Amino acid sequence: MTAPHTPPANDDPATATAPAALPTVRMMPKANARAIRFGAPWVYANEMVVDRRTKNLAPGTLARLEDAERQPLGLVAMNPNSKIIGRMLDADPETVIDQAWFEDKISRALALRAQLFDAPYYRLIHAEADGLPGVIIDRFGDTCVVQPNAAWADVRMEMLSAALVAVTGVANVLKNAGGRTRTLEGLDDVSGVTAGVLPDGPLPVPMNGATYMADLTGGQKTGLFYDQRPNHAFAANMTRGLRVLDVFSHVGGFSLAALAAGAQSAMAVDGSAPALDLATQGATAMSMQDKFSVRHGDAFDTLAALRSEGAEFDVVICDPPSFAPSKKALEAGLRAYERIARLAAPLVAENGILGLCSCSHAADLTAFRTASVRGIGRAGRRGILLHTGFAGADHPQLPQLAESGYLKSLFFRL
Amino acid sequence: MTAPHTPPANDDPATATAPAALPTVRMMPKANARAIRFGAPWVYANEMVVDRRTKNLAPGTLARLEDAERQPLGLVAMNPNSKIIGRMLDADPETVIDQAWFEDKISRALALRAQLFDAPYYRLIHAEADGLPGVIIDRFGDTCVVQPNAAWADVRMEMLSAALVAVTGVANVLKNAGGRTRTLEGLDDVSGVTAGVLPDGPLPVPMNGATYMADLTGGQKTGLFYDQRPNHAFAANMTRGLRVLDVFSHVGGFSLAALAAGAQSAMAVDGSAPALDLATQGATAMSMQDKFSVRHGDAFDTLAALRSEGAEFDVVICDPPSFAPSKKALEAGLRAYERIARLAAPLVAENGILGLCSCSHAADLTAFRTASVRGIGRAGRRGILLHTGFAGADHPQLPQLAESGYLKSLFFRL
Repeated sequence: MTAPHTPPANDDPATATAPAALPTVRMMPKANARAIRFGAPWVYANEMVVDRRTKNLAPGTLARLEDAERQPLGLVAMNPNSKIIGRMLDADPETVIDQAWFEDKISRALALRAQLFDAPYYRLIHAEADGLPGVIIDRFGDTCVVQPNAAWADVRMEMLSAALVAVTGVANVLKNAGGRTRTLEGLDDVSGVTAGVLPDGPLPVPMNGATYMADLTGGQKTGLFYDQRPNHAFAANMTRGLRVLDVFSHVGGFSLAALAAGAQSAMAVDGSAPALDLATQGATAMSMQDKFSVRHGDAFDTLAALRSEGAEFDVVICDPPSFAPSKKALEAGLRAYERIARLAAPLVAENGILGLCSCSHAADLTAFRTASVRGIGRAGRRGILLHTGFAGADHPQLPQLAESGYLKSLFFRL
Repeated sequence: MTAPHTPPANDDPATATAPAALPTVRMMPKANARAIRFGAPWVYANEMVVDRRTKNLAPGTLARLEDAERQPLGLVAMNPNSKIIGRMLDADPETVIDQAWFEDKISRALALRAQLFDAPYYRLIHAEADGLPGVIIDRFGDTCVVQPNAAWADVRMEMLSAALVAVTGVANVLKNAGGRTRTLEGLDDVSGVTAGVLPDGPLPVPMNGATYMADLTGGQKTGLFYDQRPNHAFAANMTRGLRVLDVFSHVGGFSLAALAAGAQSAMAVDGSAPALDLATQGATAMSMQDKFSVRHGDAFDTLAALRSEGAEFDVVICDPPSFAPSKKALEAGLRAYERIARLAAPLVAENGILGLCSCSHAADLTAFRTASVRGIGRAGRRGILLHTGFAGADHPQLPQLAESGYLKSLFFRL
C-alpha cells in the first residue's frame, strides 16, 4: 500500500525516529518489568527513574525502555506530564515509528473489522489492544474520526492520518480533541480536519438494521457509540410487537434498533435536544416516525413523570452516561445506578424486560449488578437475569486490562 | 388451559398439599432469614433447626418455613438427605402445589422463550430462575426432556409432566435421571417416558442455521447443549471462508454453526465416537459433509498430533467438559484450561481466532481468563480479547446465584 498523503518532513525532536537519537529511560528496581515483558502496556511515573533529563523530555518523545538491570524492554512513548509516563509501542526498541508502522497496525485492525462486519461502520482502532496506545478511531463509511488521546499520537497526527487514508481509502479524516483523557495528557482541545473535508451535516449510519444519524462534529465523543451494538441487537430481538422505552437514548441507540426489529412503538428520553433531533431524523429515515416519540428532559424526572402518568412498557432500557467515572465517585455512582433501576422497574409490565447499562470503569460487574438488583427490589419487583453483555468485538481489550472492561449491560425479566 | 393427563390421586404424604397437613420447619437464630425474604432460593442444613421430626421428613415433603422468631418465610420443599435441606417454592406458605401451580410456572417460562426464539428448540425451564428449583427441561420440538434433579420435583414428576403437556402441547415427555446432582439429593438414576413415546432415533434440531442431531436417550445430559447458542453464533459469524477446528465438539456445536455461516471447512475433535457420528449426520443433513471432517480421540493428544502434522486453522474453539467441577478440583482444573490454551494456540494462524470455553462453576471468569492468557503466552503467542460470552437467555439466573454463572466463553485474536 502506498500513501497518497506523504507526511511532512520531520525535524521535531519529539517525533524523530532515527534510533541513534533516542534517549534511554529505566524502570525502578522494584517496578514490575516482567509485566512489561508479558505485554503490559503502561509504565506509571512511580515505576520509572525520573531524573531531570527524563522529566524534560517533550511529551510524545520516543525512548528505549530498560529494566533496572539495563536489559532492554522495548520502545516506549514518553509523557512526563502524565501519570502514565510511558506507553509501550513495540517490544523491539529498534522499531522505527513511521507511516509504514502505522499502516501495519491499521491493516491488522481493519482485517478484524472486515471479518466482523459487512459494512464499514465500526470502531477501527481501540487503543492499546489495536497496538496504538491512547488512540481511538471510529469509521463512518468514508470518514474516520480520530481521537489521539495520548501525546505520542497527538504529535504524529499527520502521519497517522496519512496511514489511515492509505490503508482504508477513506476520503475524510477528522481529529476530535474532545476526549476527557486528553487533559490528563496535557493536550489541547483543538479539533480539525486532517484529510478531505468535514462532512456536510449528520451522516446516516446503518447498524442492526436501523439507521442512525451521527453528527461527527457537534456530538458527544465521535458522534455515535458503536460499543452497544451487540446489546442493541440482544434487546431488539426481544421487542417484536412490543412497547419500548429507551432512557438516555442519545441518538436512539436501543429504540431505533427495536423499531427495525419490529417493535410496536419506541419512546426515547434524553436530556439533549440535539441528540433527540438526530434520533427523530433516524426514525424518519427508517420511515418509522409514526411509531417513534421523544421526551426531552432529565431522565430521573422523566421516569418519575411517566410513572405518575401510569405509563407502561414491555421493554425498558436505561443506558446512562458514566455515573462512576472514578473510584472517588464510585459510591455516589452506585447509588445513582440503584436509583435508575428503582425508577425504571415500575414502568415495566409484568413479565417485561428491564435492561440496565453502565459505562463506568470504576463500577465492576458485581457492584453494578448488586446496585441494579437492589433498585429493582426497592421498587417492589423481582427479576431474573437473562443476559450480561459487554462492548462489541470492535472494542477489543488487552487481557491485562480486561478487568476494567467498562461497558456492562444487564437484562432482567421482571 | 386444561390437562389432558390428569395426575393420579395423591395419598402419598410426600406430595400431599392440603395446607393443614404441612409440617413447620424453622431457621436457626443466626441464619440469614432476610436473604430468604429477598428471594434466596436455598436453605442449607446448617441454617435450619433439624430435630428428629424434621430429619425424618420424606424427601420432597412440603413444609412451612419460619424464621427464628416464628414469622412465616414461605413454602419450602424439604430434603433431609441433601445439604440443601430446603428449596423455596413460594413466598406464600399457603400456596397449593398442584398441577395448576406447575402450569403457571411453565406458562411464564414459555412466554419468555417464545419472545426469544422463532422455533420450539430451547431450554424451557432453567431451575430456580424459572420458579422450579432443581428442575431442568429442554424442549426439542414436540418432545421435552425433564431432569427432576431435586426430590420435591422427582416425587411430583407425573404432575409436572401433565402440566408440561397441558401448557406446551408437546407429544412426548422423557424423564432423564442421569444428572450428577441427583446423587446429592439421594435420588435414583431411572429414566423413563412419562408422556407419549420415546422418539425413534436422533432428532434434528435447528439452531443458528445449522442442523444438529440430538440423541435424547443415549446422549449426555438432555442430548444437546443449548447454552452455547449465542457463543456458537458469535464464532460462526467470524468464519466465512475460513478453516475451523472444533475441539470437544460433542455433536458439532461450533463446527456445524460455522459451516452454516459459510466456513470453508470444519474439523470436529471429540473423545466420543457416537457424538462424532451425530455430528457427521448433522453435516450430512446440511449437505455440508464434504466440508466436514472428524478426528476421534483424546483432545489433548489430538491437539498435539495436529501440531506435529503442521495443521493450521483460522478459527480454533475448545469447549471442554468441566475441568473444575468443584472447589477441590479448581487448581488442577485451571492447569487443564491453561494446557488446552497452550496446545490450541499454535494451531491458530496469524491474526486468527482462539475461542476457549469453561463450564466450571468453581472457575470464575477472572481465574479462567488468567489461565487461558497464561496458556496462550506459554505457546509464545499474544492475544487480544474480543468477546466474553455466557449461557444464552433461555438459561436465566437468579441474581442471587449470578456469581456462579457456570458457562464462560472467551474469544481471543492471536
